[in-house]
Amino acid sequence: MGIRTREEYMESLRRQKPRVYMAGERIENVVDHPAFQVGINLLATTYDIENDPKYRDRAQIINPTIDVVNEPISSYNQLAGGPEELVEHVKLYQTHEDFMIPCGYRCFGFNTVNSLWATTFDIDQKYHSEYHDRAIELTKRIQKEDLVVSSASVDCKGDRRFAPGQQKDLDMNLRVVKKRGDGILVRGAKPHTTAAAYANLLSVRGSTGGTEEEKDFAVAFTTPIDAPGITILCTSPHFSLEPREFEYPYSRRYGGHIEGMVIFEDVFVPWENVYMCGEIEFNRQMSLLRHSYRVMHKCMCRPALLKLAIGATALMAEYNGLEHSEVIQDTLTEMVMQYHILQACSFSSAMHAWKHESGIYFPKDGPALSGRVYMSKKLGEEQGSMIECAGGLATTKVSEKDYLNPETSGYIEKYYKGREGVPTENRLRAFELVADLAASEFAGWHLGSVVLGGGPSRTHKRAIIAEWDMDQCKELAKAAALIPEGE
Amino acid sequence: MGIRTREEYMESLRRQKPRVYMAGERIENVVDHPAFQVGINLLATTYDIENDPKYRDRAQIINPTIDVVNEPISSYNQLAGGPEELVEHVKLYQTHEDFMIPCGYRCFGFNTVNSLWATTFDIDQKYHSEYHDRAIELTKRIQKEDLVVSSASVDCKGDRRFAPGQQKDLDMNLRVVKKRGDGILVRGAKPHTTAAAYANLLSVRGSTGGTEEEKDFAVAFTTPIDAPGITILCTSPHFSLEPREFEYPYSRRYGGHIEGMVIFEDVFVPWENVYMCGEIEFNRQMSLLRHSYRVMHKCMCRPALLKLAIGATALMAEYNGLEHSEVIQDTLTEMVMQYHILQACSFSSAMHAWKHESGIYFPKDGPALSGRVYMSKKLGEEQGSMIECAGGLATTKVSEKDYLNPETSGYIEKYYKGREGVPTENRLRAFELVADLAASEFAGWHLGSVVLGGGPSRTHKRAIIAEWDMDQCKELAKAAALIPEGE
Amino acid sequence: MGIRTREEYMESLRRQKPRVYMAGERIENVVDHPAFQVGINLLATTYDIENDPKYRDRAQIINPTIDVVNEPISSYNQLAGGPEELVEHVKLYQTHEDFMIPCGYRCFGFNTVNSLWATTFDIDQKYHSEYHDRAIELTKRIQKEDLVVSSASVDCKGDRRFAPGQQKDLDMNLRVVKKRGDGILVRGAKPHTTAAAYANLLSVRGSTGGTEEEKDFAVAFTTPIDAPGITILCTSPHFSLEPREFEYPYSRRYGGHIEGMVIFEDVFVPWENVYMCGEIEFNRQMSLLRHSYRVMHKCMCRPALLKLAIGATALMAEYNGLEHSEVIQDTLTEMVMQYHILQACSFSSAMHAWKHESGIYFPKDGPALSGRVYMSKKLGEEQGSMIECAGGLATTKVSEKDYLNPETSGYIEKYYKGREGVPTENRLRAFELVADLAASEFAGWHLGSVVLGGGPSRTHKRAIIAEWDMDQCKELAKAAALIPEGE
Amino acid sequence: MGIRTREEYMESLRRQKPRVYMAGERIENVVDHPAFQVGINLLATTYDIENDPKYRDRAQIINPTIDVVNEPISSYNQLAGGPEELVEHVKLYQTHEDFMIPCGYRCFGFNTVNSLWATTFDIDQKYHSEYHDRAIELTKRIQKEDLVVSSASVDCKGDRRFAPGQQKDLDMNLRVVKKRGDGILVRGAKPHTTAAAYANLLSVRGSTGGTEEEKDFAVAFTTPIDAPGITILCTSPHFSLEPREFEYPYSRRYGGHIEGMVIFEDVFVPWENVYMCGEIEFNRQMSLLRHSYRVMHKCMCRPALLKLAIGATALMAEYNGLEHSEVIQDTLTEMVMQYHILQACSFSSAMHAWKHESGIYFPKDGPALSGRVYMSKKLGEEQGSMIECAGGLATTKVSEKDYLNPETSGYIEKYYKGREGVPTENRLRAFELVADLAASEFAGWHLGSVVLGGGPSRTHKRAIIAEWDMDQCKELAKAAALIPEGE
Repeated sequence: MGIRTREEYMESLRRQKPRVYMAGERIENVVDHPAFQVGINLLATTYDIENDPKYRDRAQIINPTIDVVNEPISSYNQLAGGPEELVEHVKLYQTHEDFMIPCGYRCFGFNTVNSLWATTFDIDQKYHSEYHDRAIELTKRIQKEDLVVSSASVDCKGDRRFAPGQQKDLDMNLRVVKKRGDGILVRGAKPHTTAAAYANLLSVRGSTGGTEEEKDFAVAFTTPIDAPGITILCTSPHFSLEPREFEYPYSRRYGGHIEGMVIFEDVFVPWENVYMCGEIEFNRQMSLLRHSYRVMHKCMCRPALLKLAIGATALMAEYNGLEHSEVIQDTLTEMVMQYHILQACSFSSAMHAWKHESGIYFPKDGPALSGRVYMSKKLGEEQGSMIECAGGLATTKVSEKDYLNPETSGYIEKYYKGREGVPTENRLRAFELVADLAASEFAGWHLGSVVLGGGPSRTHKRAIIAEWDMDQCKELAKAAALIPEGE
Repeated sequence: MGIRTREEYMESLRRQKPRVYMAGERIENVVDHPAFQVGINLLATTYDIENDPKYRDRAQIINPTIDVVNEPISSYNQLAGGPEELVEHVKLYQTHEDFMIPCGYRCFGFNTVNSLWATTFDIDQKYHSEYHDRAIELTKRIQKEDLVVSSASVDCKGDRRFAPGQQKDLDMNLRVVKKRGDGILVRGAKPHTTAAAYANLLSVRGSTGGTEEEKDFAVAFTTPIDAPGITILCTSPHFSLEPREFEYPYSRRYGGHIEGMVIFEDVFVPWENVYMCGEIEFNRQMSLLRHSYRVMHKCMCRPALLKLAIGATALMAEYNGLEHSEVIQDTLTEMVMQYHILQACSFSSAMHAWKHESGIYFPKDGPALSGRVYMSKKLGEEQGSMIECAGGLATTKVSEKDYLNPETSGYIEKYYKGREGVPTENRLRAFELVADLAASEFAGWHLGSVVLGGGPSRTHKRAIIAEWDMDQCKELAKAAALIPEGE
Repeated sequence: MGIRTREEYMESLRRQKPRVYMAGERIENVVDHPAFQVGINLLATTYDIENDPKYRDRAQIINPTIDVVNEPISSYNQLAGGPEELVEHVKLYQTHEDFMIPCGYRCFGFNTVNSLWATTFDIDQKYHSEYHDRAIELTKRIQKEDLVVSSASVDCKGDRRFAPGQQKDLDMNLRVVKKRGDGILVRGAKPHTTAAAYANLLSVRGSTGGTEEEKDFAVAFTTPIDAPGITILCTSPHFSLEPREFEYPYSRRYGGHIEGMVIFEDVFVPWENVYMCGEIEFNRQMSLLRHSYRVMHKCMCRPALLKLAIGATALMAEYNGLEHSEVIQDTLTEMVMQYHILQACSFSSAMHAWKHESGIYFPKDGPALSGRVYMSKKLGEEQGSMIECAGGLATTKVSEKDYLNPETSGYIEKYYKGREGVPTENRLRAFELVADLAASEFAGWHLGSVVLGGGPSRTHKRAIIAEWDMDQCKELAKAAALIPEGE
Repeated sequence: MGIRTREEYMESLRRQKPRVYMAGERIENVVDHPAFQVGINLLATTYDIENDPKYRDRAQIINPTIDVVNEPISSYNQLAGGPEELVEHVKLYQTHEDFMIPCGYRCFGFNTVNSLWATTFDIDQKYHSEYHDRAIELTKRIQKEDLVVSSASVDCKGDRRFAPGQQKDLDMNLRVVKKRGDGILVRGAKPHTTAAAYANLLSVRGSTGGTEEEKDFAVAFTTPIDAPGITILCTSPHFSLEPREFEYPYSRRYGGHIEGMVIFEDVFVPWENVYMCGEIEFNRQMSLLRHSYRVMHKCMCRPALLKLAIGATALMAEYNGLEHSEVIQDTLTEMVMQYHILQACSFSSAMHAWKHESGIYFPKDGPALSGRVYMSKKLGEEQGSMIECAGGLATTKVSEKDYLNPETSGYIEKYYKGREGVPTENRLRAFELVADLAASEFAGWHLGSVVLGGGPSRTHKRAIIAEWDMDQCKELAKAAALIPEGE
């Protein structure tokens, strides 16, 4: 089918029977549960984009450079066939701005398809194994069925002073506990698995480990989310589920995904779904390749919410009659600068992509990593600035219930009035938006996802310096200092 | 009595009958209403401090330099008799660190007593009016009865393009609508009046206005909170009221005050409670004097929560087994530096206090203002850093209900385990604390109160440059540049 | 000829007889004067690049999209035929890294060709004038003769409180004092005209003015640098001219250009060299178009010296035995991040270029402007970091003369020794390089050129916000806040 | 005598015969050598302050709390008798603002007196040695003779990968090579010894080493600067020695001290001048105590030049007619904030001083260290801001020789004119001042001294976290998280 609709995606969820818990309860029907509506809708929106005539050209790819299915497929699932395709991919994510989605989530399918493609190719080169053929089959399936893939990567890690093989409880990192003729049994948990309960496929890998003794942690596989032995404990939403008229106007509609801790209790995975098993020397490489796309997508998805934040701040200033304040204009400019820098970093990574021997391309990491580190330093400061520009009512406004209460609504109507010509209600709604984006529990969750999504900045910084050709720089310095070459 | 107890304060609230609304409902009994418990307890804690043998020496002042009541009084209510007393006052606020209170709130009583003392003195000098005697009586009453004073200063302001006198609806700034033989009638609203519903006295003043035509906005008075014509619309708490075992461990106990919009519908104020009425040329001065103490107290109260944030980050690092990470140590150091800088700014303002002709002292503004601007830039960034140091579970942990659910508790017990020897439950509690301080609705409210409390940074920056002796600096520059003096 | 050599450029200078002063002296022979050697060599290096087989493909353009001369030309002089050509142009400037040139200077020819092309096109559309044909002729000449064009833009401006037309001395901004049948007479001065004394052509324009009364300031023309009435007062070099062995190893070879104040004393310009004269409504547009390329080139040229600074810092750390210091690695990473961000901004501006009606393209300003503002905030901090990473000897080392003095050289040889295996002399040279880049008069000049080149950040920030589609953002915010459209 | 005059200080220099080299030459007469005039004058200025009736009360101390000489002494040399005395000491350094001195240098005498007093006391407690009596004698001598003490602390260190005892050449850290009955022989070099050539006494200590094998590096002593075996290699001045009319108006008069590498070739030190010799366990403590005062003085001396920078920027803005620019006002405000924060940090460290068992006080380190780290991050950025506020002529102005040349002076007179009513010459002088402070070799040297004086920020940060009571913070966090105490 290649391109699914919103309805087909939701229908596919109904056919799955995962073991899901949230807030102390077993949830049998995820797709109709109120807490999952926002998350499912965010994902469903990406299917709208695929089918929307306005965006279709960006969201569908007809003749991809690397073609395995022979029909139009979703760009979200494509194999990265070159810099131009990656530049287009950045532009696809720019469409998210129009839908105000803070996270479209489809990056994980892209990452899975591309990183397994390359890694299995390399393993096969060395071991003459069959991983790459399986990766091709997986790619076909994801592309044909237009699946949502959830990525279960980060391990629990336990006591961080110790390596995986030295943990008292070895299950603190997911591992193969048994290899059988028909497949493997895996045990462990993945605590930060976003959208696990409403994805179509889990893409799982060991996140760490590098010594020969840690071979059991070097594994990569896919599995249905309702395979026996899998339990998903879901985070409660970081936004309000109560019905509201004014409050949380953004987050109650778009406020992010539901994370899940996915627990594997000796889950069976047949060999055809295994893409690495014990080839410890490829573990780090797979990790780096995934990281590469992961970080670039973080740069690509942040601008949507940033653009909204800019608009909210500017709107608020206008409604206050303060749009000409130089300080507020300067804050807005700093936010716009951040937007340009982030987009530039994504584009630069895309256009300087390098070709892997397997035929697909990976972005140049430096720019995207730099954007990623930059943006995570900025967001907190920016949330403060938004509140400062909006003014005190962002955090001292009364409840919408007081506005709806006839005994008190008159007071609010009168005294919350701002600029002449702007209805009080509109100003109130603008304050609610700023509060939602900058001072709510959702804002805190978003801060967390920006600061830690794809790993902490210290990880990215190490990657930046690892990629950089410092020797060349030192040679330049020697030449500049008139130090003889070779010394 | 001079020194009240927690119980006496709460008893005093029961005697008041203010017209209060919150979340769409009229609240008859503030003191027993769940939403007010945290706020009332924060204030009550300051009475505990006054009576606690460990802190009494700081919280009571026996022979103040300027004495109007002849008995031990609360330092929270004292007249600022000199730099040494102010230095002691900073130390009084340092005790708040032990009680983890984000806002003790008593600064408003202090501000009222001191700023009215000085302003009325100056007005009387010019007009031979009786304001200063009234201010003395007010001081006596506040000191003797150890009252909680709430300050209603900031006006609604309406369309900020226009001055008070040019607003279409003149009520957008509080004003005197009638002067009578026995007193005045005032109309308007004060939208950011913290703790209004559970204070003992409202201290009200016009926040802006400066031209002769704006004399009606130049007013200062006190009033009971239950005077006829006063309505208080309260903000809903920025923390959860549901009973919890683990979640929001800080904010559900200490999570800040309840703000109120106080509406004045032609409220009558007898002359003995009026401290300015139409003396427009003193309006700005009164505003500056209040601002002076207001900002210094903002510097003085932030360290309590900052210290807790430092502890939470360090504890989390320890529980993760990451306490030796250089990056985390560096983050902690930056937070400690901020603590030192803020305290230093408070102490420097205190020790360089200047004497007003009325006999009391005001802090040197520059250091406190600088600390205030500095801290508001730092907090948002810091919230991000705290989350980054803690790790992903700060925002992706599951509900406490899952931990309490026997079907799932085992998973959490096993997989949320961190450092050897630390019970999982403790680590979970530490994550809840970090989330509460950095990624909750309370965290957003706190950000707002730090960023805007006492006014936005642009206001403080203008005050910094206004106080600074730029001419002296330019003379130094001329001398350094060998430019003849006088040119 | 299309492509000149270093020698041909220098020969061309010998044929010019400009009236030049420096440091109190009239300089008859610029090309052999020691103070001009560094500047001339920087420019000559760009001709080396044009002819170097390794770089020729980037530096020559064979079939430009917009072709006026029918022979290979220098890419430095090309008309911007599309985003791809601009992306290539960014890569051309990346070659400067290999030559460690802080400023190749050829951007001014590019700016002149492109901005006059577009502006004259627009003026002709309105006035049916002949400016565009003249611009085509000028382009041909610059491309065919591969000329160095110096840009004389910024005016003296006088008392900044007043507009050009309100200055007491109208000459504070360059203006047309007479229009004649054969041309115009211009008067004024351009105080920051880099490389004026050793360029082949001056490209001059009025920098400000916008009212009908200020038509005389709306002028654009080219002129030989030795036209009668032109005097060039040159800045003394910001690097040492004394012969040195170790000291100032970079700046005495590459340390920047010589600026000149170019004074026009009723200089005659024939009509064929005039591209605007009085069309005041196009003055601002011309200014913006120039600014567009100007800023992008600032982003494009900074990386060369940044890369060298990275290398110098890393080399120094290695020579000290401190290359594994986490703090130093972090400083290096921040510098590398800056490199990536700047390059990304240039590339993003290039690839999003927009087509002017005249057929040429201009970069999208936002990214380049953002990079420009970003880099100017970073440099000063970075100079401090470089010194901190290098250690105290960067500013407390003794003179090279002490190292060359046999009485004292032994002390230095022994005590300035760092890492085992690294000759003391090399470490000394590395310190000299760091001092040169971060703590010398050259470093100060470079700071000035980064901070003010192309205008101050406040100008760029205004341009960022002017270009941004804020209305679209506000519409998004309205949708997010559930405010009805159109309200 | 207790209080010397400028003349007496200079006379004392004439009586010394140190072996001094600079720029390849042996310098017999330091006191009359042009390169030393600025440095000697800076020091002499502190004697002017001691004798100036306007400042005498701050610069002389009549009845110090700890009195060893029974006559008025210079506050620069006093024993720290309590917090009040230290607060006064901060104020003494504030007087330096009036004299625009970037470094008064007398802190080293103060450090020597106080740190040796305390350290020798502690050593004697353990070893019943006679060090403390010697320290008392030293204190008396410094106080009575009002000496300038130069501090030779930092070692060469060699290959930083290795500890002192593991260096291939053990002389890379100063050490005792022989103990004799009458004294010790020391060998090594101190490469960053400011003002060594024109001090009265060298105070020397081992800077590192901590293991039992490194006892030879644990040494502290004083010596005349002309003791046999001492050679001083001096840094060339970081300012111009040529006569100038306009240029470098500040640095050619106040531009900092001359550093020296002091080489010890088996220098003999009699026992009565030795204050530690082998008591390795006290080495780190002595280092910390010195660091404590060192850092506080760095905070105390920076404001003088900061104030001048503020004035220069403001003056320049005025001369340009741009004093009302909001951006420039904001830059000035940030600089003023920095001034307040630094002063506040010094005062806070002083007022929270703690008493050492020997009777003297040491400052609380946290605030001063925080100020020190803060200021070193700011300076570079600030130099850029100063240039940006001043405008391009700060780095593109022509030589003063062109202004003095009658052929060209008219051009400059006309075109460098700024604000109406301000002579061109004055504006030119203001530009020269900004260039001197922000873009000269002196500015680079100053940046180095701010960034590395007292050690790099990483050292200070470690000290901040070491002093901080993190356990108390973690206990607060546990209480806030409802984690049982003791767990």
